[in-house]
Amino acid sequence: MAIKLTIWNEFVHERRDDAVKALYSDGIHKVIGRYLEKNPDIEITYATLDQPEHGLTDQVLDNTDVLIWWGHCKQYMVHDEIVEKVFDRVLRGMGLIALHSARGSKIFKKLMGTSCALRTRRASEKERLWVVDPSHPIAEGLDPYFELVHEEMFGEWFDIPTPDAVVFIGWYKGGEVLRSGCCFNRGNGKIFFFQPGHETDPSFHNENVLKVIENAVKWCRPAKMLDSLKAIPCEPLEPLNP
Amino acid sequence: MAIKLTIWNEFVHERRDDAVKALYSDGIHKVIGRYLEKNPDIEITYATLDQPEHGLTDQVLDNTDVLIWWGHCKQYMVHDEIVEKVFDRVLRGMGLIALHSARGSKIFKKLMGTSCALRTRRASEKERLWVVDPSHPIAEGLDPYFELVHEEMFGEWFDIPTPDAVVFIGWYKGGEVLRSGCCFNRGNGKIFFFQPGHETDPSFHNENVLKVIENAVKWCRPAKMLDSLKAIPCEPLEPLNP
Amino acid sequence: MAIKLTIWNEFVHERRDDAVKALYSDGIHKVIGRYLEKNPDIEITYATLDQPEHGLTDQVLDNTDVLIWWGHCKQYMVHDEIVEKVFDRVLRGMGLIALHSARGSKIFKKLMGTSCALRTRRASEKERLWVVDPSHPIAEGLDPYFELVHEEMFGEWFDIPTPDAVVFIGWYKGGEVLRSGCCFNRGNGKIFFFQPGHETDPSFHNENVLKVIENAVKWCRPAKMLDSLKAIPCEPLEPLNP
Amino acid sequence: MAIKLTIWNEFVHERRDDAVKALYSDGIHKVIGRYLEKNPDIEITYATLDQPEHGLTDQVLDNTDVLIWWGHCKQYMVHDEIVEKVFDRVLRGMGLIALHSARGSKIFKKLMGTSCALRTRRASEKERLWVVDPSHPIAEGLDPYFELVHEEMFGEWFDIPTPDAVVFIGWYKGGEVLRSGCCFNRGNGKIFFFQPGHETDPSFHNENVLKVIENAVKWCRPAKMLDSLKAIPCEPLEPLNP
Repeated sequence: MAIKLTIWNEFVHERRDDAVKALYSDGIHKVIGRYLEKNPDIEITYATLDQPEHGLTDQVLDNTDVLIWWGHCKQYMVHDEIVEKVFDRVLRGMGLIALHSARGSKIFKKLMGTSCALRTRRASEKERLWVVDPSHPIAEGLDPYFELVHEEMFGEWFDIPTPDAVVFIGWYKGGEVLRSGCCFNRGNGKIFFFQPGHETDPSFHNENVLKVIENAVKWCRPAKMLDSLKAIPCEPLEPLNP
Repeated sequence: MAIKLTIWNEFVHERRDDAVKALYSDGIHKVIGRYLEKNPDIEITYATLDQPEHGLTDQVLDNTDVLIWWGHCKQYMVHDEIVEKVFDRVLRGMGLIALHSARGSKIFKKLMGTSCALRTRRASEKERLWVVDPSHPIAEGLDPYFELVHEEMFGEWFDIPTPDAVVFIGWYKGGEVLRSGCCFNRGNGKIFFFQPGHETDPSFHNENVLKVIENAVKWCRPAKMLDSLKAIPCEPLEPLNP
Repeated sequence: MAIKLTIWNEFVHERRDDAVKALYSDGIHKVIGRYLEKNPDIEITYATLDQPEHGLTDQVLDNTDVLIWWGHCKQYMVHDEIVEKVFDRVLRGMGLIALHSARGSKIFKKLMGTSCALRTRRASEKERLWVVDPSHPIAEGLDPYFELVHEEMFGEWFDIPTPDAVVFIGWYKGGEVLRSGCCFNRGNGKIFFFQPGHETDPSFHNENVLKVIENAVKWCRPAKMLDSLKAIPCEPLEPLNP
Repeated sequence: MAIKLTIWNEFVHERRDDAVKALYSDGIHKVIGRYLEKNPDIEITYATLDQPEHGLTDQVLDNTDVLIWWGHCKQYMVHDEIVEKVFDRVLRGMGLIALHSARGSKIFKKLMGTSCALRTRRASEKERLWVVDPSHPIAEGLDPYFELVHEEMFGEWFDIPTPDAVVFIGWYKGGEVLRSGCCFNRGNGKIFFFQPGHETDPSFHNENVLKVIENAVKWCRPAKMLDSLKAIPCEPLEPLNP
């Protein structure tokens, strides 16, 4: 059965900034989508900030197994009700892939329970991502490391909870490091944070970045969605007074 | 230097319910406090829901190293601004000990990023807490297990993120289990969730429960408070263009 | 491509003890195998202690993706050279499923680096296994818990390293608990320990136990085997003297 | 009560290699010891490979709360019986601090259950160690990062089990990264691996390195030693036949 993937993009920089437009004229979501649609097991829906309900209507969310999220300068404009719906669906089983600046999105911070603060530098510098968990499905098919010639620096200390798995650690030319590919279980859902993807850098044209995203889509697909999550009063399974 | 401890209690059941009053006439906070004040390294402040700002003024919070939290039926009445202040202070380093129904408090759920749902049963049944991490400071001085003759059942699946450490697993007469003592790192702060403490059960008069709480106070004391948590733009430490 | 599974069994109790023979006349390995061979994606080889090289010749091991291990009274008789070969292959990627008393096998203890000691009781008592990580592939298709009417008790404290994931926690009628389904990453390989399977109890005829084993076989299959594991001297990727 | 610390050093390079002798004329153990002996709560014993039983007699081990280990070229000469004794004592509670090449020592590999293989380069290059867990006791008093101008490169993928905590991640001038400060719980004991300390580099004269070692000594001190670790047959705590 196909994986129903929704790719959500803020889609603001690509329309107003020539440098970004040159890299991602149809939007970051479409560049990622054009790679993933080659996989016949993935069915893609696109959603953007400017659509009604940000494109994340109940109908769309109810038909989403995995949600990719890219946001940056307008993260504060995402409606809280939509965030609540996405949050609920992740806990019930929907996979979430948070790319780059999505580390500062409402939904990612809500799921982490921390500030997600870190060091940053926009110098379009070299990053080298090392695989530190070679048996992880997200690292499948990769070499021991891969390089991005131009990326924004995201450096430690990165205020996230201890990940359930760290798949990549990033090295930056300017001297910093980052847990740059991190898995988190929340509720019945799986989350993957991945560092690359600054809007003025060509990372979403990089084959390794795209392969990691594809691996992550497969990894965080739910086996089953739960109906709801609430405290359940229940009868004893064993006699209380023998 | 003394540990500045604030014990926060909702303090509602003890005033309106005779069965609770009989167990905790001055409030759960005072029963815990009377045990901990025997430790000369702990200085205690009390705070309750009915006080202005729930007793958690800036002055109180600024002088709190560790915060104990007990709440239940009125958790929804805790002001969001106070929750935000406590959240910020935990991330900057303040320890937090969430007791029993505090698993459903705004502050605990915000720090976890999950629903914190679980199974429940108010049958005042036997619970046996097994130490599963004997080298953990919170287990110091305990036997391999201890029993509570009367407790509310909290059972798995418990929707929490993977703990940084599981210190206790609870066994219930009625047939359930729980990760009943769990440590979480969030930001620069340490959090301990502990299952016992239903208001109609005498758990806060139990020596082992009190010892665990005392151990937890010592364990989650911050070495240092951070000033703030935000993304920090920074200059390269190494030449970017050699 | 099919998963090449080898099921290793000590195969001693089944031959000498009538009570065991009555349950597993052809051996525990064959009972597990008859269930798994219904899955067309699994190709099974059997190996037992009494065979030359315990049935784990280089040819067999080189053609094994996943190894199931059951051993008990004769664990000390497993040759150290075979243990070394299995150890090397696990680190290079082969999955390992250690069932019940295999917690005390040479290979499991070597991979854990601990004593694997725990509490035990042969009273053929009720065990209830609770799923505590519902999103884990090994829990796929299971209800929130399942019961075994007759099992040996294995209780905490269980001296194992912190698992990479705890999938099940077991409740015992006699009052104990256990992290009864645990995942460990070692090298490029994945390991699953599962509590059920005492030789005088019918656990390997239980549908849930068999389904868990099948899920585990799929989960710990390697994407890729590594050639070897040794320290690699290497040239700098960046200029050391800019 | 004082912490009884034993510092074990191979003490071979310092005697035969002039470059090492120039840095550590009395041995690496003595340089570390001279710093730690300023702490009145630490009582130090020294032990070296060339002593009878490598200086780790029963009397010495029985009086050791924390053991620091440095070894490299002669690790294969450490007697297996001594390794077994140290292993047993770690599981019962003794802290172990494995420095640099001790990642390849018999005792560390036995406790890890992996190859501990990694990338290496002896180019005496710059390493920058980033604190990634600021609330950890081992990071107490440190700045966000510190630098070593000259160190051997140890790079990922580092074949270790998932650490219970990663305190430092190292950045190397030549382009690699490492989980360079890692905590592991094994049995009742705590283990800290720390990357710095190649014999031809002056790392053990660095204040930050020494402070980390001191913090680690305090962190991995046992609250209590266990008598032994073996499977314990035990009677039921609850009636099996109600």
